[in-house]
Amino acid sequence: MSGVITLLTDFGTADGYVAEVKGVLLSLAPGVQLVDLTHDIPPGDIRAGAYALGRAVRTFPAGTVHLAVVDPGVGTDRRALAVEAGGHWLVAPDNGLLSRVLERQKFRAFALPVRADAAPTFHGRDVFAPAAAALARGEPCTGPALTDPVRLPPARLQRRASAVLGEIVHVDRFGTLVTNIPSDRIAEGAVVRVGAYELALHRTFGEVAPGDPVAFVGSGGTVEVAVRDGRADVVLGASLGTEVGATARPPRPPRESIPEA
Amino acid sequence: MSGVITLLTDFGTADGYVAEVKGVLLSLAPGVQLVDLTHDIPPGDIRAGAYALGRAVRTFPAGTVHLAVVDPGVGTDRRALAVEAGGHWLVAPDNGLLSRVLERQKFRAFALPVRADAAPTFHGRDVFAPAAAALARGEPCTGPALTDPVRLPPARLQRRASAVLGEIVHVDRFGTLVTNIPSDRIAEGAVVRVGAYELALHRTFGEVAPGDPVAFVGSGGTVEVAVRDGRADVVLGASLGTEVGATARPPRPPRESIPEA
Amino acid sequence: MSGVITLLTDFGTADGYVAEVKGVLLSLAPGVQLVDLTHDIPPGDIRAGAYALGRAVRTFPAGTVHLAVVDPGVGTDRRALAVEAGGHWLVAPDNGLLSRVLERQKFRAFALPVRADAAPTFHGRDVFAPAAAALARGEPCTGPALTDPVRLPPARLQRRASAVLGEIVHVDRFGTLVTNIPSDRIAEGAVVRVGAYELALHRTFGEVAPGDPVAFVGSGGTVEVAVRDGRADVVLGASLGTEVGATARPPRPPRESIPEA
Repeated sequence: MSGVITLLTDFGTADGYVAEVKGVLLSLAPGVQLVDLTHDIPPGDIRAGAYALGRAVRTFPAGTVHLAVVDPGVGTDRRALAVEAGGHWLVAPDNGLLSRVLERQKFRAFALPVRADAAPTFHGRDVFAPAAAALARGEPCTGPALTDPVRLPPARLQRRASAVLGEIVHVDRFGTLVTNIPSDRIAEGAVVRVGAYELALHRTFGEVAPGDPVAFVGSGGTVEVAVRDGRADVVLGASLGTEVGATARPPRPPRESIPEA
Repeated sequence: MSGVITLLTDFGTADGYVAEVKGVLLSLAPGVQLVDLTHDIPPGDIRAGAYALGRAVRTFPAGTVHLAVVDPGVGTDRRALAVEAGGHWLVAPDNGLLSRVLERQKFRAFALPVRADAAPTFHGRDVFAPAAAALARGEPCTGPALTDPVRLPPARLQRRASAVLGEIVHVDRFGTLVTNIPSDRIAEGAVVRVGAYELALHRTFGEVAPGDPVAFVGSGGTVEVAVRDGRADVVLGASLGTEVGATARPPRPPRESIPEA
Repeated sequence: MSGVITLLTDFGTADGYVAEVKGVLLSLAPGVQLVDLTHDIPPGDIRAGAYALGRAVRTFPAGTVHLAVVDPGVGTDRRALAVEAGGHWLVAPDNGLLSRVLERQKFRAFALPVRADAAPTFHGRDVFAPAAAALARGEPCTGPALTDPVRLPPARLQRRASAVLGEIVHVDRFGTLVTNIPSDRIAEGAVVRVGAYELALHRTFGEVAPGDPVAFVGSGGTVEVAVRDGRADVVLGASLGTEVGATARPPRPPRESIPEA
């Protein structure tokens, strides 16, 4: 194990909930290093949590334990999970929060026991933190194996004639629109369409004038749309789920040379 | 000592004040692990700080040092404190911030010296951080002993006929109303009253329909009122200090079987 | 090296960007301690980042590596920097973000290489984090030396007759106005002027009545103006860049004894 436990929640940082979880982790796994991924997932927004977790996990060293709690069903009969995927361990409610991690690799999943004295509204502290601490100490996972963790439906991604159609899967702090269209699906010199806007693909937002919208391949490997020194969500009137099109990498043999509007 | 120093302040994280405190801690106690409890206590809100600190401290390992700074009287003649309670050390201004910790256990309190060159507006950096670092290094506390640290008045908690009356002592990020009514004071199947609402006690908010209010015993061991997938503070029109009643655990011999409205 | 890497960005904490950077740091420099300075610099505000960085760096132990990313020109031909100053290492875009650190001491600056596969929109993860990790591991900086890192123009600070004129260089979370007027430039019993307000210098805000404005020498060693239990920016109608005057330390021989209005 790497000696690192990361935390991703929708608890916010104004209440002491995150602090209580950290205290349990440090009590049960002394010396472990705690790293906040984010605690600002919108309350109950499993999809947003799954997106942030899926991105962040990739950069951490193998042997890291990730504690992820966005848990509107806490205290009901939803299952609690421990999952090993790509050398990482994840503990989370079984509600789709791990979808983005599970969809890209093989995994082993286990059901976590829920102690009778666990607070029905705070499994982050009473179920997931003790499980994460035990994994960080190198203890084996003894829960029964599961093969069917809950998955969110993947975002839409379709090939239509010469275009690939996807959707906005995240709007970040800067108002940048992140799509699910991978860079290897689009053509050289692709045109990206969001609503009435058609944008040529650039390398980075610094290549256009301040205030102008710009499309580029973002740091997650998918098409993004930004406004330099501005907010693309506001300027383009787009939000989570808005359809985005981009000129597709040509099929073999290519039949059309003009990208559709 | 556990090698951990926690930090709770009202400094926010946008300015560099927390960072300056952390730099002093790491300069004076190299290798210590820093854990943020929260820096989002409303500016100057000693009561909110005392509540968050009181909850969070309980989950940390013995030997932890807690640095707590909500300090509207900084630079005046208010005293500076170091307190040992339950194996934990706490450093804080003497203004009631430790009330929730002090009221539940025995403690030893000491006055911290204030160096002449301490910035009169930043004792967090110049007084409390050096004191916390020294404690984390295992140095003994040499300040004169105190027996009368400032205490906030406790929240109201009264037995009236068949009801126990308390108040809302915290509203969390989710809009959940946390009361000071302990679970061991209320009856099986208690009814909880907030304003015009009368709510049956459930185990967790997942047991009611979305949008419905629900009462339950929260993760801090007291009665809470939430709205599933909503905000109880808004729906019930309640806030900090609002009175809450709950069917009391019956006295012996019980005289009334009908909870009062 | 101190084994500590600090992080200052304008990424916010709601997205996973900071988390991705931390994952890279822990992958490339296992065991290093990560300390958040702040991630709430207003998007693209290099001046605010430079101010916060300049203050925070001073309290950290020598041998600390500071990763600072406020980078509106990411992906363009702006240079990437590693700088040694006062025993600290700093990695940052070459856009003025290090101005406050560079202006107070000697430094050595180096250009960082930008790998061809670095995401053009996320040098924090792909350029600065690997560089910071290498420095934290004790590797020497091999980039070509630079002598001309970009500097922001310093804030105005002028002597006029018996007054020293400066400006507001920061407004903090409490609404406190921080100026660039150093305490050693002002007279004993100085009067501080902001707009139509003339304020006597006090030691701390606790010395005036709640709601009253007050001037004092702040924890950064410069004149500040606050309103006790209120917001000075709102009450005094002042903001970043507003001119502030203070009675200057008398010249030799003193010619005027009455501070000008």
